[in-house]
Amino acid sequence: MFFASDNGGPVHPQIMQAIAAANDGHVLSYGNDPLTQQAVEMIRELFEAPEAVVRLVATGTAANALILSTMAQPWQTIFCTPLAHIHADECNAPELFTGGAKLTLTGTDGAKMTPDTLGQAITRIGWRGINAPQPGAVSLTQVTEMGTLYTLDELKALSAIARAHDLPVHLDGARFANACAALGCTAAEMTWKAGIDAVSFGGTKNGCMAVEAAVFFDPAVAREFDLRRKRGAHLFSKHRYLAAQMQGYLQDGLWLDLARMANERAAQLATGLRAAGVDFVCEPQANMIFARLPRSEHQRLMSGGGVYYTEDGDPWHGPDDEMLMGRFVCDWSVTEDDVDRFLQLVTG
Amino acid sequence: MFFASDNGGPVHPQIMQAIAAANDGHVLSYGNDPLTQQAVEMIRELFEAPEAVVRLVATGTAANALILSTMAQPWQTIFCTPLAHIHADECNAPELFTGGAKLTLTGTDGAKMTPDTLGQAITRIGWRGINAPQPGAVSLTQVTEMGTLYTLDELKALSAIARAHDLPVHLDGARFANACAALGCTAAEMTWKAGIDAVSFGGTKNGCMAVEAAVFFDPAVAREFDLRRKRGAHLFSKHRYLAAQMQGYLQDGLWLDLARMANERAAQLATGLRAAGVDFVCEPQANMIFARLPRSEHQRLMSGGGVYYTEDGDPWHGPDDEMLMGRFVCDWSVTEDDVDRFLQLVTG
Amino acid sequence: MFFASDNGGPVHPQIMQAIAAANDGHVLSYGNDPLTQQAVEMIRELFEAPEAVVRLVATGTAANALILSTMAQPWQTIFCTPLAHIHADECNAPELFTGGAKLTLTGTDGAKMTPDTLGQAITRIGWRGINAPQPGAVSLTQVTEMGTLYTLDELKALSAIARAHDLPVHLDGARFANACAALGCTAAEMTWKAGIDAVSFGGTKNGCMAVEAAVFFDPAVAREFDLRRKRGAHLFSKHRYLAAQMQGYLQDGLWLDLARMANERAAQLATGLRAAGVDFVCEPQANMIFARLPRSEHQRLMSGGGVYYTEDGDPWHGPDDEMLMGRFVCDWSVTEDDVDRFLQLVTG
Amino acid sequence: MFFASDNGGPVHPQIMQAIAAANDGHVLSYGNDPLTQQAVEMIRELFEAPEAVVRLVATGTAANALILSTMAQPWQTIFCTPLAHIHADECNAPELFTGGAKLTLTGTDGAKMTPDTLGQAITRIGWRGINAPQPGAVSLTQVTEMGTLYTLDELKALSAIARAHDLPVHLDGARFANACAALGCTAAEMTWKAGIDAVSFGGTKNGCMAVEAAVFFDPAVAREFDLRRKRGAHLFSKHRYLAAQMQGYLQDGLWLDLARMANERAAQLATGLRAAGVDFVCEPQANMIFARLPRSEHQRLMSGGGVYYTEDGDPWHGPDDEMLMGRFVCDWSVTEDDVDRFLQLVTG
Repeated sequence: MFFASDNGGPVHPQIMQAIAAANDGHVLSYGNDPLTQQAVEMIRELFEAPEAVVRLVATGTAANALILSTMAQPWQTIFCTPLAHIHADECNAPELFTGGAKLTLTGTDGAKMTPDTLGQAITRIGWRGINAPQPGAVSLTQVTEMGTLYTLDELKALSAIARAHDLPVHLDGARFANACAALGCTAAEMTWKAGIDAVSFGGTKNGCMAVEAAVFFDPAVAREFDLRRKRGAHLFSKHRYLAAQMQGYLQDGLWLDLARMANERAAQLATGLRAAGVDFVCEPQANMIFARLPRSEHQRLMSGGGVYYTEDGDPWHGPDDEMLMGRFVCDWSVTEDDVDRFLQLVTG
Repeated sequence: MFFASDNGGPVHPQIMQAIAAANDGHVLSYGNDPLTQQAVEMIRELFEAPEAVVRLVATGTAANALILSTMAQPWQTIFCTPLAHIHADECNAPELFTGGAKLTLTGTDGAKMTPDTLGQAITRIGWRGINAPQPGAVSLTQVTEMGTLYTLDELKALSAIARAHDLPVHLDGARFANACAALGCTAAEMTWKAGIDAVSFGGTKNGCMAVEAAVFFDPAVAREFDLRRKRGAHLFSKHRYLAAQMQGYLQDGLWLDLARMANERAAQLATGLRAAGVDFVCEPQANMIFARLPRSEHQRLMSGGGVYYTEDGDPWHGPDDEMLMGRFVCDWSVTEDDVDRFLQLVTG
Repeated sequence: MFFASDNGGPVHPQIMQAIAAANDGHVLSYGNDPLTQQAVEMIRELFEAPEAVVRLVATGTAANALILSTMAQPWQTIFCTPLAHIHADECNAPELFTGGAKLTLTGTDGAKMTPDTLGQAITRIGWRGINAPQPGAVSLTQVTEMGTLYTLDELKALSAIARAHDLPVHLDGARFANACAALGCTAAEMTWKAGIDAVSFGGTKNGCMAVEAAVFFDPAVAREFDLRRKRGAHLFSKHRYLAAQMQGYLQDGLWLDLARMANERAAQLATGLRAAGVDFVCEPQANMIFARLPRSEHQRLMSGGGVYYTEDGDPWHGPDDEMLMGRFVCDWSVTEDDVDRFLQLVTG
Repeated sequence: MFFASDNGGPVHPQIMQAIAAANDGHVLSYGNDPLTQQAVEMIRELFEAPEAVVRLVATGTAANALILSTMAQPWQTIFCTPLAHIHADECNAPELFTGGAKLTLTGTDGAKMTPDTLGQAITRIGWRGINAPQPGAVSLTQVTEMGTLYTLDELKALSAIARAHDLPVHLDGARFANACAALGCTAAEMTWKAGIDAVSFGGTKNGCMAVEAAVFFDPAVAREFDLRRKRGAHLFSKHRYLAAQMQGYLQDGLWLDLARMANERAAQLATGLRAAGVDFVCEPQANMIFARLPRSEHQRLMSGGGVYYTEDGDPWHGPDDEMLMGRFVCDWSVTEDDVDRFLQLVTG
């Protein structure tokens, strides 16, 4: 009954097999191996973007911060929500890799921004002239940090606002697959067809060991990214093992199957909680649920074997001290039975 | 009728004379001259802090950013208001000098924070652990960017909150003198006696040419600050001309006289505007007034020779598009007659 | 016949098995899992340092740059040789992670420095005062980038010079195991017993997939390192897979066995080359050989299936344009037969 | 008898008068005043470059570091000599402002580089690929830090090498006027006509109080420089006082007259020292002399009232411990009589 995070589960066997299969003989290092080229082509195909720049790194924070560093100058600011992973959970990594750019927070409900809140935030900065931080880039997260989703139309509307101000748009896709599965759309539809310039295409949370792809739809950035990745100490020497993970992940649509499994388990959990009268902070849409429960109830569930986080701090805080928000995340390896047993505990 | 800023006016004659008097013969550079030592002692005396580290720089942004860089690590965050100069008007200078620290915004009314909003902001960050930016320092501005003042009790209450979380407190005193004059308190009372650890003691806006003092009440920081100042390209070779300004500024209490003059002109202006039915955004307390007037009225006043800024953007925005906030700042050189003529224009 | 690098070979089966064994069930992420604690204890035991701070990252550059960032302030300089990996092969990663510290180059023969050259370099900087970069740290590489070794006495003499100037000493141990195997010493003897303050303990080049340990003998740095690692995007979420590699690597002395195998293959190659009259740039001491051969001979060997790098540039340059330096590196997986076949090609 | 530095003397009266004349009434701040526009035009005229971007700052280190930050990316390296001010005397300011670029040292004799040493240094870096720091820019100093000069042909030859590698060239002109006076050339001839892309045009060492101009011959950089200057805390609010200095400095060719005076005093001193049998480290060419004298002789001269620096460290070191290098610098205010009295002391 582990719902603490989708990075707590095992690597999927198909991906382990791909790693094992790659473990043969000598190849050139730093990505100059055939497997890497193959993985890059698979990602280009997935995104229907034959010219895309695709680079692999091992952590989502690396993908986010390195992409943002190619988009925002040190004297600029990046627009994101107060709950954005890049703001709240990366210990100033974007600031390090951009050389000191600022993050401007806008939008709150369900960790989403709207065209209005984004437009106002950009405009507000705009008039202060040379003394102010300058607008630099927009960063969206899909699935959001509150488990909600932007529709394709919402993504298009937000990127249109960004484009109107000449700002590039980054998509933090740590749970990209879960969003595609939930929306029933393609990777292309959720990115360049919706005006996204670059995406952190996550693998780690969805059954990989440690791999994320930075995908740029503008090929001009390739050389700069390569140098930034190396300088950030994020260029793997034995690069084939990153590539093998991606290969196993994309083979036969595994990436989407795993996301569907995770989403289904979260839906099962949400249905059960709702039936038990539990209140949600936002309507669950993918593989992550935020639910309010009395403090004592959390204690009972955890004593009974439920593993998940509760939070006292804002914005996790319920309406009073006694109601705490619990975060429940499912990865592909959570079983129907795990959820059933937890729900019995809830209703028990 | 110049109210655009208190950095638009001339240098006071007593300060010009001090510069001229310093312009004689050869002395060692980089602050190893007798005049610098003298200026340092005058500032220590002013602050009743014989052990204080006192360093001169030429811009307020340099004083702020360099002080903050000794207080906050690159993985930490500095608590300030959304209108803080360090956030809104320094083009990411604190981020540059700290190596990428973040600024966390809290409190809004009149550009002030309260113990409650500060305490909540610190606590909120606190529970996120290693993945989050860490609490680093608190930065207050006195006179605030909205022309309001913290009382000594308010300063003490805020610094107590900071201290309870082991955070040092910086005071941006670009208008330090105006605050002392308005509160009728000493420099010591407004700083270390109120729990402030370091202050940017401004000279430029109050009749100097280009000089600010960074004053630390903990002497341990001296060597680090010296290296940071040099590395920031803020160590003057012909240092005596910074020292001379400070000497002229402090001689016979000139600094306080000039601030009183500026405050009085602003009070005269506020009284006249209020009599004319003009609405203030906050109650004016020092030498800066934010007043709401119809857009057309601003146009009339400017055509008539009033020089000041109006702003469309939030938070300068009035309740509707037609009411714009105007910012009126007085320096020591604005005359009673200047204000009278402007008020005639208003009532005219 | 692959001698291009020791990062081109496969992961050793024992390490692959450790990874596979770790792939079971849910555990807490970010290093809060039992396997990580176990790997840390194994490393502490190896170094006979029960209080050491041990942290895992995935690249050698990350280990080096993050360790150095805890040792050198942005206004300081790090003493290393002109061939040091941190200077020549990390694309300014140390500069990024330290926030702009400088690297001062000293010593050249065989990529080693001597107490004299180090002492002079430190002293030379020292007298310039506040305007100059300040001495910050010393970084040594063992095995050096030219395949040579410091004796334990040499390490002690260098760290004594550093200590006399209050400088901490970092050891880049990307090939740490090869050095221990060649010197027949313990990990403790080559580090804290020789005056080393922190070491990048390499795994990747010696049969792991992607893991290096940053080991600090002073426990005080733990919290700072954790925050720097996270901010550098080098904290793995599925941390158990780093830990498993280390576990498999250290189990039953595998780390030393693999290094011995690599060293023996290099010795076999050196013996054969010497017999064929080939000249070495430095006397080979571990698993890396730099040999001068005519340009045409290199072409013949490569056409015949030898895979390795030659270099035109200084310091790889031979005495004339026609003699080029070739770099031959053996990892554990190079076979006796590989070397034999290559030597037949040479003498062919 | 002050020869310690050319930043130890007074401001020239014509420049003081220009400052005093500027001290009248209110003007807009941050450079939006008529005097600044006028100073900019005077500098453009001086450089025969009507489109040049001209920005004023208060320190030479600021001019150097800010210019270089527009030329070199954080993953690049800047080629300069080991004695370059940007390397040896700016406490890592270039590293701070570039975000961590490296400095690659080349050339030593008389603090000059040659086309050969520069070309080799660039080529050497070039072949290491993505793992190495990338070539970024070239920085020359004129007058050099050893008081020597590049001829116009030497400047052209160096900039040709840079251009062949697509590298921009910066000229550190802290003593620009002394070089123009010594070479009898125009400002244009020594900069864009010789292939220089941007110059730090010094005022402070040559009779100003604190002003340097950053001059770019490519206008495209203007916006970026403005943001970098503000972010570096180097944008003066009361900007007219920087402009006034430049105006006074350039008026009626004062800048060149002051440099000629300084050069003549140094020549007088060199002639006298030579006659007294003193040995020079390099042939004096402008206003700075490096002479070797026995340690005891230095002590005698200093006791007699001579003020200047001697150095023990390399490269100031003489052939043995007893011969120390003394640095003698003349500014415009050193008198013929000062030099005579000092020479009497020498021969005395």
